[in-house]
Amino acid sequence: MSDHPITTPAPAPSPTPAPEPPYYVAVFTSLPTPHQSGYAETAERLGALVRDIPGYIGEDSARTPGGLAISVAYFRDLEGIERWRRDAEHRVAKERGRQQWYERYSLHIARVEHSHSFRRPTPA
Amino acid sequence: MSDHPITTPAPAPSPTPAPEPPYYVAVFTSLPTPHQSGYAETAERLGALVRDIPGYIGEDSARTPGGLAISVAYFRDLEGIERWRRDAEHRVAKERGRQQWYERYSLHIARVEHSHSFRRPTPA
Repeated sequence: MSDHPITTPAPAPSPTPAPEPPYYVAVFTSLPTPHQSGYAETAERLGALVRDIPGYIGEDSARTPGGLAISVAYFRDLEGIERWRRDAEHRVAKERGRQQWYERYSLHIARVEHSHSFRRPTPA
Repeated sequence: MSDHPITTPAPAPSPTPAPEPPYYVAVFTSLPTPHQSGYAETAERLGALVRDIPGYIGEDSARTPGGLAISVAYFRDLEGIERWRRDAEHRVAKERGRQQWYERYSLHIARVEHSHSFRRPTPA
């Protein structure tokens, strides 16, 4: 109710604080087509499903209007990424993505060796 | 001059096509403060400098208005990332980032083990 300025628009703890290495990241960079019908619902459904994958840590996403989208999902191990890759609903969604939602994309699966996080000290 | 629809708003080849592994990624996820004066100039200057680092491959960035920003820089080897980390102008910019531009951030340095790219076939 007070008049304080809101400086943190993201509702969840975001970006995901860096876990202790080693862990894995799946970096998905994409250029969307103009044909995004059904995308939001599918993304929400997949976002709920991936949280049940053993070893899932978290996810960060950003999207420049009219430009690139980048999602980074963090997993404790390669088995978690592999399980998510084989998930039946995820595979159906990826096929629809190639048919409809994406002009281009790249996927990079990588083992994190170093990481750190910064958080601004709360002003006095 | 023709009336064809423009479906690829990004000027450069983007997202960066996945190189042959192994290579390295530096994933930088951040929540900006409202105090972004000087940021754009610095980002442009650093973007020119990093291209001179031996082993630099490319970079992808996305930014949700009012939300997260994610940048992914690709390097052939860890030495390139290390050289960029020690770059004097880069270090000054990072210090200013902690003072002014970033509410929070995480940095993940990772070795890419698998990757692939998709490009929509040109319509007939």
